[in-house]
Amino acid sequence: MSSAEFRAHGRQVVDWIADYLETIETRPVRAQVAPGDIAAQLPGHPPEQPEPFAAVLADLDRIVLPGITHWQHPRHFAYFPANSSGPAILGELLSAGLGVQGMLWITSPACTELETVVVDWLAELMDLPARFRSAGAGGGVIQDSASSANLVALLAALQRASAGAVTAGGIQRRHTVYVSSQTHSSMEKAARIAGVGADNVRVVGVDPVTQAMDPTHLRRLIEADVEAGALPTMVCATVGTTATTAIDPVGEIGPVCREFGIWLHVDAAYAGVAAICSELRWINDGVAGYADSYCTDPHKWLLTNFDCTAFWVADRAELTGALSVLPEYLRNQASESGTVLDYRDWQVPLGRRFRALKLWAVIRWYGAAGLRSHIRGHVGLAQEFASWVAADPRFEIVTPHPLSLVCFRPLWTELPVDAANQATMSLLEELNASGELFLTHCSMNGVVALRLAIGAPSTEHRHVEQAWRAIQAALPPT
Amino acid sequence: MSSAEFRAHGRQVVDWIADYLETIETRPVRAQVAPGDIAAQLPGHPPEQPEPFAAVLADLDRIVLPGITHWQHPRHFAYFPANSSGPAILGELLSAGLGVQGMLWITSPACTELETVVVDWLAELMDLPARFRSAGAGGGVIQDSASSANLVALLAALQRASAGAVTAGGIQRRHTVYVSSQTHSSMEKAARIAGVGADNVRVVGVDPVTQAMDPTHLRRLIEADVEAGALPTMVCATVGTTATTAIDPVGEIGPVCREFGIWLHVDAAYAGVAAICSELRWINDGVAGYADSYCTDPHKWLLTNFDCTAFWVADRAELTGALSVLPEYLRNQASESGTVLDYRDWQVPLGRRFRALKLWAVIRWYGAAGLRSHIRGHVGLAQEFASWVAADPRFEIVTPHPLSLVCFRPLWTELPVDAANQATMSLLEELNASGELFLTHCSMNGVVALRLAIGAPSTEHRHVEQAWRAIQAALPPT
Repeated sequence: MSSAEFRAHGRQVVDWIADYLETIETRPVRAQVAPGDIAAQLPGHPPEQPEPFAAVLADLDRIVLPGITHWQHPRHFAYFPANSSGPAILGELLSAGLGVQGMLWITSPACTELETVVVDWLAELMDLPARFRSAGAGGGVIQDSASSANLVALLAALQRASAGAVTAGGIQRRHTVYVSSQTHSSMEKAARIAGVGADNVRVVGVDPVTQAMDPTHLRRLIEADVEAGALPTMVCATVGTTATTAIDPVGEIGPVCREFGIWLHVDAAYAGVAAICSELRWINDGVAGYADSYCTDPHKWLLTNFDCTAFWVADRAELTGALSVLPEYLRNQASESGTVLDYRDWQVPLGRRFRALKLWAVIRWYGAAGLRSHIRGHVGLAQEFASWVAADPRFEIVTPHPLSLVCFRPLWTELPVDAANQATMSLLEELNASGELFLTHCSMNGVVALRLAIGAPSTEHRHVEQAWRAIQAALPPT
Repeated sequence: MSSAEFRAHGRQVVDWIADYLETIETRPVRAQVAPGDIAAQLPGHPPEQPEPFAAVLADLDRIVLPGITHWQHPRHFAYFPANSSGPAILGELLSAGLGVQGMLWITSPACTELETVVVDWLAELMDLPARFRSAGAGGGVIQDSASSANLVALLAALQRASAGAVTAGGIQRRHTVYVSSQTHSSMEKAARIAGVGADNVRVVGVDPVTQAMDPTHLRRLIEADVEAGALPTMVCATVGTTATTAIDPVGEIGPVCREFGIWLHVDAAYAGVAAICSELRWINDGVAGYADSYCTDPHKWLLTNFDCTAFWVADRAELTGALSVLPEYLRNQASESGTVLDYRDWQVPLGRRFRALKLWAVIRWYGAAGLRSHIRGHVGLAQEFASWVAADPRFEIVTPHPLSLVCFRPLWTELPVDAANQATMSLLEELNASGELFLTHCSMNGVVALRLAIGAPSTEHRHVEQAWRAIQAALPPT
């Protein structure tokens, strides 16, 4: 593609995106297609001859868009949000345009150094402890996802617990990992990947109301494992669980970890970024005193396109000890000088994009003030939505909702619990099939509830109102 | 950022990239900065108030660019290339603009279905065996890197070898993995991550001339491990090693794997895509008969921006058996129907970008004919470069060079080997410090050689000539 063609098609794509986002509200939120519908419209074989770029754009409209579930839609309330924003999109574009590999410092020093600085900035905005900043023995890095961050945290924990024996000889004894029943499934996935095994993931009970991890139960499980000869290796505490945004009591979990010499990782994938608002900083209570590692996702709720997980570790040597392998073809003077960071040793892949550009662009475009306002707007909308639910006697709110997720359900007062759960799931499917809004569900103490997660940058008061009206209207008349 | 602002700044960024690529040749290839130079120019604290986008672009020019090692530079001959192209950049931009999460089919059906189709297309272009296509029990997926592909291949191998016991109970016996001395370091990294351990990675010897894995030695190592009670679990054969593009004899390794029931993974990260040219298809000899999994990187040599590793598996159930964890909040009717693929179960992370868009745009823009011409051009340039080296009595070519990498060295006829190696490394540093070109090195049979890897889309005949003149001129006068 010539430079002139790139300029022309680049303008078309920029306009295509602007048009898409301007009109996104007119589309059904969840794709209205059946399995195979999209594939059936695509050619079975690759083209032999070149096609014009206009053909790609035409098929994007005709074939791809009907198969898109619109995460940037203002009435996308499912899962957690996947934030996007103008500066992040353009930061991603700049990264693609530069096309550099940041695996080693030497392979593009700015790719590493800008990342270090920007992740330090984010730590400062969230008031994370000094030991997570790059000036000392710790530091931060951008991972592709919290799943990967949880995995590398576990690898560092195994490295520490085994004094390096796992890295050399593999898993040679039973290491146990502690999660709550509400911890994200990626932690079990990490335990599988790391060779710890799903059966060695202990599930700590939670408080039935708050859904937060029970530190007393955690201690009992650890004691039983020690008694049985296992090596308790990592506790994963969650700040803002996926199902309900429960906040595990890190300040009570931490002393247990310290007593038994267990790595404490804090998964704050969704909620962590809320700590940039001083009034929400309490969600990280205990982190400063006890956490060995911490992650949060600017790609969920901080206006930065996926992928952008910020991961911090208090002692980076434990991480790089697990992950650094140095073949001849990667040796270079800068790495051997010990004065640079080589981020390939902080992650699973070797290669890495220049992801810091998008986070840098986001923080500068919005400023700290704008980022706080973004978070506060959604928290405010969620609290208002919760007040509407609370005021309607046909519904109940099922968990605390300190952030921007509200879990609630129709009471179905005449139905036994199984039938009520079925009725809730049918209601959910009816709402989602309408295309008007997209919700997901959770199950707590045997009761199914609806999750309404506010967080798309485009979501305004009217969209939450529309969603509530649609939910109310879908209830059968009493 | 308003829609109007996005359109305006989007045009600026598109033009910035076009200008950058038009003038890239005027810049030094390798960044000319010292550790800390870039960080020192960045503010120590994040901005409180918003800044204009122009400030980001200005700092990109002033602070970031001097710290960039230009991978798209036509005289970047280091490592392997990291291809970029207009359609790939615009595909990445479209992906960022849509901002969808492709973790489940339901979360954007087109993201999954386009990926399945496009990876099938690539398999067809490369003439990979039918069992890697999605129509049967196997299929392909886009991973972020060959490192991650090698890791998930190992996880699938462990799942099969242990009949699922590893997934449930963790590593419970000694699993061994076989690589050659030339296999990429990511395979040892994968063995560490998976809890197999670096010490259980057996290093098979190579032919001293071709640097290809010795199947006889492989068999001996396997037999010894079986004798010692270990469970040989995976062999990683390489098509196009990192140091010298050696091609392991898959057709001889395969029968050994089959005899002992060992998973055969083929890492063709760099070279695999060359198989789209019929005259180079021999590099995959033996793959059709024996490979359980295979990966290649369109982000290295097929015009598609990082990250885009294509990974295929003959039996996807072994992969998803290792990686699938299904919590309540991800349950949905489509997944439970069994009629869709959920790619989250094929990879380490849960979330995923719409990476198929860029590969789709690349294949359509260039067509199969254009892709072949791209590969053939570089192979031709490399062969011509090799002929120049061969014709200069001061140099020798140290390995076969069937693709677009040439490994060579000054003979330093008067120096003993250690001094010759030092002289080669000094020459390398002098060349790289000049900014005129960027090479890396390898070490074979104790001898250090220079690697000149051709593969940037912008590299023309004159750039290879310039590089050769610079190399010749850097030799001390005889």
